[in-house]
Amino acid sequence: MVDFLTLDTDTLRNMQKQLTLKYEEFKQQNLKLNMSRGKPCPEQLDLSAGLLEGLNRNYLAADGTDCRNYGGLEGLPEARRLFAELLEVQPDEIIVHGNSSLALMHDLIARALLFGVDGQNAPWGQQPIKFLCPSPGYDRHFAICEFFNIEMITIPLREDGPDMDLVEKLVAEDETIKGIWCVPKHSNPTGITYSDQVVTRLATMKTKASDFRIFWDNAYAWHDLTSEPVPLKNILTACKEANHPDRVYIFSSTSKITYAGAGLAMVASSVQNINRLKKQMAIQTIGPNKLNQLAHVRFFQNAHNVRLHMKKHADIIRPKFNLVLNLLQTELGGKKIATWSRPQGGYFISFNTMPGCAKKVVQMAADAGVELTKAGATFPYGIDPKDQNIRIAPTYPSLVELKKAMELFIICVQLVSIEKILCSREQKPAELITPLGNKAQIV
Amino acid sequence: MVDFLTLDTDTLRNMQKQLTLKYEEFKQQNLKLNMSRGKPCPEQLDLSAGLLEGLNRNYLAADGTDCRNYGGLEGLPEARRLFAELLEVQPDEIIVHGNSSLALMHDLIARALLFGVDGQNAPWGQQPIKFLCPSPGYDRHFAICEFFNIEMITIPLREDGPDMDLVEKLVAEDETIKGIWCVPKHSNPTGITYSDQVVTRLATMKTKASDFRIFWDNAYAWHDLTSEPVPLKNILTACKEANHPDRVYIFSSTSKITYAGAGLAMVASSVQNINRLKKQMAIQTIGPNKLNQLAHVRFFQNAHNVRLHMKKHADIIRPKFNLVLNLLQTELGGKKIATWSRPQGGYFISFNTMPGCAKKVVQMAADAGVELTKAGATFPYGIDPKDQNIRIAPTYPSLVELKKAMELFIICVQLVSIEKILCSREQKPAELITPLGNKAQIV
Repeated sequence: MVDFLTLDTDTLRNMQKQLTLKYEEFKQQNLKLNMSRGKPCPEQLDLSAGLLEGLNRNYLAADGTDCRNYGGLEGLPEARRLFAELLEVQPDEIIVHGNSSLALMHDLIARALLFGVDGQNAPWGQQPIKFLCPSPGYDRHFAICEFFNIEMITIPLREDGPDMDLVEKLVAEDETIKGIWCVPKHSNPTGITYSDQVVTRLATMKTKASDFRIFWDNAYAWHDLTSEPVPLKNILTACKEANHPDRVYIFSSTSKITYAGAGLAMVASSVQNINRLKKQMAIQTIGPNKLNQLAHVRFFQNAHNVRLHMKKHADIIRPKFNLVLNLLQTELGGKKIATWSRPQGGYFISFNTMPGCAKKVVQMAADAGVELTKAGATFPYGIDPKDQNIRIAPTYPSLVELKKAMELFIICVQLVSIEKILCSREQKPAELITPLGNKAQIV
Repeated sequence: MVDFLTLDTDTLRNMQKQLTLKYEEFKQQNLKLNMSRGKPCPEQLDLSAGLLEGLNRNYLAADGTDCRNYGGLEGLPEARRLFAELLEVQPDEIIVHGNSSLALMHDLIARALLFGVDGQNAPWGQQPIKFLCPSPGYDRHFAICEFFNIEMITIPLREDGPDMDLVEKLVAEDETIKGIWCVPKHSNPTGITYSDQVVTRLATMKTKASDFRIFWDNAYAWHDLTSEPVPLKNILTACKEANHPDRVYIFSSTSKITYAGAGLAMVASSVQNINRLKKQMAIQTIGPNKLNQLAHVRFFQNAHNVRLHMKKHADIIRPKFNLVLNLLQTELGGKKIATWSRPQGGYFISFNTMPGCAKKVVQMAADAGVELTKAGATFPYGIDPKDQNIRIAPTYPSLVELKKAMELFIICVQLVSIEKILCSREQKPAELITPLGNKAQIV
């Protein structure tokens, strides 16, 4: 492959023409593919076939609780045991709830704004507060902060986790920094997993705010693509050892284990935090849908079976990741116009264009019928300062659709890159030129 | 039956002895009955047998949506249509959500405190606010207010609804009164249904606060014990006609239709309110459990079948209401020591002792193994100013258990009443005497 930057202008112009023809061909196919979200594909959902039907009209939990009736705020005992084991916490350190871990995070922050988190410090809403946002990150975390008027500070996300020098410096100085968002394993979207050292530093660091909290969204805890699970140091244990037992809230769900829309979500933390949360949640609800919890426990029976189940997921989506990675390597490798992640798990491939190209690439793909995650979505306020990160979500489409979508995507990346290179040679501001190279009308 | 108040002291003392013996007999039976909450009994839950299993591994909604996957924040279209028809609103005026209508109420108020309700007025949390609480009422409504530091003003609940003269006067004067809790049909616990006139007055009344809201918890909308449904005027229509289209939020659920812990909850309001709410909820969750919604729609198919289903519920619980009412009438009628409601639907019988007796009755019953709803629970802050209201929840126990529990209850009522009468004759303060008539140690 040839480094595009070394090609002369005529060669680039020729390539541009050919790629434009190909792009127009795609446009005429009237594609309609949505790759914007990390959704499991139907075959993955089929892995849990019979989950609900498996209740077999026996609705009694192990302790005799009729799961159809009211009660059980903290979740069924057997569901707490199962997910406690999987998350490496104790059963009394976990609440198993409804179908949305996002709701657990959102509600926790809403309560923190109104009441604080520890019964000692003031409600977070009494003064402007800030959250640290390792980025690229999960857009729905950032949306919660934006919604609640929590100022977001972007922290570079590296191969081993957030830039801890920066994190430590900021939290030591600023009492209004109350939290940090973390997707510690197979991070959304870059796929990295926090190193032991980063976990330790997060647990031990000195924070000016004594009510500082880590929002540990372990959404991909068991979602490895590799034969051996990628290890992640236990943050709750680390926090306890560092004498900050209440510092972390761990979230997870079965959204990408059983059913994305109809699974179970959970929050784990110190017993003190969990008991406080239970008291607050008792005002909100009489209890979660225990029938769905019972169905899940009956379906899996034990943690080992969950892990086996996750291998089946990996078998379905691994070829999709490989297809994307192979196409990227074959078509873009060595051209020096893009970089991308090679994740060992999770749901995304993080793709970086040349600076200033991501929005245009996403727009071009959309114009030809392939919807990607909005460019910028992986950064606070939806603004990618370098306009280069694109989140590729390969799990939902079929292999045939995915191949087509990626071929189009690769064409778009090349066209926008060539345009950028040519622009810079002509020393014209890139924004005056449309992606296809026609000069825009200057008003 | 003899009016207790006309009996001479010796007769009362003799009755007291006999009743005490009976009470002690009950105590020795080591009963363990919980009548504290309005829970459906197993036979009622059995009416929905096969609800989940009925999905039959076909998870596609009418529009092709795979209900297992993410999305559908406002609820499945067919679920919205079904419950819109049942609640007499339009499908775009309703959100069908998870298993807890309480959570919908709680979350709505949390958001109102942080953001206000209309995008124009200030967040409710910026100043102390108040809610009107028709009482006796639902303890979980009052718990939400207490949790969020919303001052509660008790409004007498009459046979046709809240004391509207008082309500109108208060809301016209006080801008910090932002809401009123209503259980408009088969109210919890008194069983009354609001008259058309009360509904109209609520919809049309002038409120000093332009962001005043009615929290219309129509929990027992279809829960009639009578052959013909008890009518309730449509509050949303009334509000629209009164040019206050955004004034009301209507809540309901299938908690007492299908499964108390695993049903569907819904909120209905003006399209403007619903759209605002949808935008806010989109930050909280990707969507509710649509599989459960699909299961419900498949199970019922249409509103008519829901109504037929509710007749089966009535057939199961009507004998329980009748048992309680007959026992009360036989054992307490004419004794002038208690009054009680004769509800046409809902889940409760509201029982009033002589003033100052409710707590003691509940305590005595508990000491003999029958747990009733905490005395005072039906009033704001758990304080019944006359200490006389007790909520009887007859649905959950079997007829045999219920008979036993009510026999005990009736003994307790008589013992505490006799004690009170004797005390007043002796002109001793009642609190120095234990329920069984032994003089308490005076320190």
